[in-house]
Amino acid sequence: MSNKPGIPKGTRDFDSIQLYKRNYIIEIIKDSFFRFGFNPIETPSFERSSTLLGKYGDEGDRLIFKILKSGDFLKGLDKDEIINNNSSKIGSKISDKALRYDLTVPFARYVVQNQNNITLPYKRFQIQPVWRADRPQRGRFREFLQCDADVIGSKSLFQEIEFIQLFDTVFNSLGLRGATIKLNSRKILIGLSEISDCKDKFKDLTIALDKIDKIGMKAVNEELKSKGFSDKSVGIITDLISFSGDFKKSMKLLRMTFENSTTGLEGISDLEFIFSSIENLGLKSCNLSFDLGLARGIDYYTGVIFEVSAPETVTIGSIAGGGRYDNLTERFGLSNMSGIGVSFGLDRIYMVLDELDLFPNVNSNLVKVLFLNFGNKNSLFALEAINKLRDSNVYAELYPDNLSLKKQLSYANKNKIPFVVFIGDDELKAKKFNLKDMNSGSQELLTITQLLNKLS
Amino acid sequence: MSNKPGIPKGTRDFDSIQLYKRNYIIEIIKDSFFRFGFNPIETPSFERSSTLLGKYGDEGDRLIFKILKSGDFLKGLDKDEIINNNSSKIGSKISDKALRYDLTVPFARYVVQNQNNITLPYKRFQIQPVWRADRPQRGRFREFLQCDADVIGSKSLFQEIEFIQLFDTVFNSLGLRGATIKLNSRKILIGLSEISDCKDKFKDLTIALDKIDKIGMKAVNEELKSKGFSDKSVGIITDLISFSGDFKKSMKLLRMTFENSTTGLEGISDLEFIFSSIENLGLKSCNLSFDLGLARGIDYYTGVIFEVSAPETVTIGSIAGGGRYDNLTERFGLSNMSGIGVSFGLDRIYMVLDELDLFPNVNSNLVKVLFLNFGNKNSLFALEAINKLRDSNVYAELYPDNLSLKKQLSYANKNKIPFVVFIGDDELKAKKFNLKDMNSGSQELLTITQLLNKLS
Repeated sequence: MSNKPGIPKGTRDFDSIQLYKRNYIIEIIKDSFFRFGFNPIETPSFERSSTLLGKYGDEGDRLIFKILKSGDFLKGLDKDEIINNNSSKIGSKISDKALRYDLTVPFARYVVQNQNNITLPYKRFQIQPVWRADRPQRGRFREFLQCDADVIGSKSLFQEIEFIQLFDTVFNSLGLRGATIKLNSRKILIGLSEISDCKDKFKDLTIALDKIDKIGMKAVNEELKSKGFSDKSVGIITDLISFSGDFKKSMKLLRMTFENSTTGLEGISDLEFIFSSIENLGLKSCNLSFDLGLARGIDYYTGVIFEVSAPETVTIGSIAGGGRYDNLTERFGLSNMSGIGVSFGLDRIYMVLDELDLFPNVNSNLVKVLFLNFGNKNSLFALEAINKLRDSNVYAELYPDNLSLKKQLSYANKNKIPFVVFIGDDELKAKKFNLKDMNSGSQELLTITQLLNKLS
Repeated sequence: MSNKPGIPKGTRDFDSIQLYKRNYIIEIIKDSFFRFGFNPIETPSFERSSTLLGKYGDEGDRLIFKILKSGDFLKGLDKDEIINNNSSKIGSKISDKALRYDLTVPFARYVVQNQNNITLPYKRFQIQPVWRADRPQRGRFREFLQCDADVIGSKSLFQEIEFIQLFDTVFNSLGLRGATIKLNSRKILIGLSEISDCKDKFKDLTIALDKIDKIGMKAVNEELKSKGFSDKSVGIITDLISFSGDFKKSMKLLRMTFENSTTGLEGISDLEFIFSSIENLGLKSCNLSFDLGLARGIDYYTGVIFEVSAPETVTIGSIAGGGRYDNLTERFGLSNMSGIGVSFGLDRIYMVLDELDLFPNVNSNLVKVLFLNFGNKNSLFALEAINKLRDSNVYAELYPDNLSLKKQLSYANKNKIPFVVFIGDDELKAKKFNLKDMNSGSQELLTITQLLNKLS
């Protein structure tokens, strides 16, 4: 059977060069997580459907990949039921597990399940793929890696401060200067809904604010007014946006506005503490900026929210984000566990580093020397030397077949192997190695000791 | 909504300690792969169903996890069709992709798809999870990591020799002595079918031989006779098994037996070349042994097959395996590409190292010092020092909340953090750090420079 090969849309193969670059980023993120006291966990790729469904809103539910029950999944299913029901109802009967959609909900599930074995505040990081049945586009895939760090069990704003420093550490280590860490607080957005007597329309506010970049302030204002927001609060929002991140000016206006909103005032003092602390500590590579337009779609955030955008020269949107959530574990039966977490978007960061040419020269092949093959006897002699080289941490290989010299040298060239060794019959007799430097073309006849010294 | 948390059967959460141990093994395997000239690739977690189905036999097809089409998967499906058909037929209509079952078939797909970009012989490694809807039991999971290395595009037996050395290198680096690399060749099994005039019953032979350990030689003999194997060949098989791996004796008997089987004779000379080469090169930690009873179930093998069993004191079965396949890429439209590959079973190796107490003392927390929290002012001063420590590669953290000393010290103890720093108001005024060694209990008052020197 022949079968023209391909992969499902939105997924990717990675070759070695791409993986060296991806791993370069991953190792820096991982190292920074360790440096800040986070330890790793891993959770299964698929969870029970009941763990995931209903946690990300209707749109999220739709985008979750469901796995068919194995075996006879139609068994016990009434035929009438199938005929009279729609896909989503049938889906829940023939599927009982699903691929994870993010790392945060599985983390909440993990915390509740292991609550007797963990020490609070509990800091963990998790670097694993997630899957979403989203429409693929530039920088958006159906399988992608998330790099998350979360702390659960403390309401301290020092967590917010530490995460801002963590963002800065990661992007500084990657050599990326000028990324902006944008900050807002759900409490301020709640305050704005409260003063408009639109407390119940908080969600409409976040949805509208999320669109500023796309449709502009004027259209957002129209939308807000149509939802019932007062002219006064729409005016304040317009002013705040026009301050474009001037922190002090924004807080001043908000403090006047929030006279009667405890939540709003809390949001202000949270942000003021964070901003003054970071001002005092200093950042290495990133800027910190208040952004009222930052809303972040995900339902579970309750306090400070973050988003990091790439330097302005790169138009790619956010490269990291996160925020504080207060009730995530409640859904699994454990209340009063405030948490906060951030997520780094590997694919976006990769695109930024690529565009700004910030990847170091990563070696795509670690093999230093190829032994050419001139028949079995010579090759066995070569393998003895190869073993000794490998033991001395020189990565070496034997060309497996006794083919033309041209073919063998072309293999070394294509794989960028810097040295080759010839062992002809004369060399074999003399127990010597003819080493050729593929760049300079120079050749030397060496003993095994000389060869080891030369290549180590 | 409350929801008692749990994970799907056959899957696992991993905590930090388990991950440190798993990563210890993975890093050694990965390093050995690099040392032998393999470079990494990664493929998507799910493939088109057409890529996977039909490659692992009926049993394999049944064990593949299928993913429901997203959106309205019943759309366009005739209701009568559903009622009149069984799960397996409907399955192929409502699902078009599936989780990968191993790494070899996706690798074959990758090679064919990228044939114009790769240099032959092409060596790759791949360390990724695979999924099987198998019945979970000790050491067998529904999600597990495979660590594979393959070479494609060369028939040279030096590949077989290199893989034997690779097994030896990995297990030697893990400190595991006395594992046995068992070797057989499908060509010898084919030879045995040929001399019985049972060429068409080659599969029955492998199925029967696979059962020797479970049901014993006598029952296997009965089974072979019932399938039509001659008394003569059953006798030879019994003799060979009774030689229990004596290589020279086995080859001598086989050479007489295979007078009329070209394939059988080929199998003998393959094994003789491999055994004499390895004898010459030597192994560091493993034994090499011929095992006629080794059959390996997977359909695609055509030449030498390998299996590594743990030292006899551990009863756990095989910890690695592999073999040569000649026609794997043919199914995707590319013929004449002989390949050979091996796979390390991470979970089994983990259990062996655990049982033999071979894991090094892995640190479960890299944080060296916890700064206690005595209020915001003191903590902000602490954060400045923490930044300096982190920049000097000393992993440090601040306890986020101003709670009782007891609670804070208990966090340090439970997380095995060796040092804590107190910054009371006196220390803050003097800009000094009170460092306590949690093991000895001793305390010293230090300047920032002294603190850096002490902990670096």
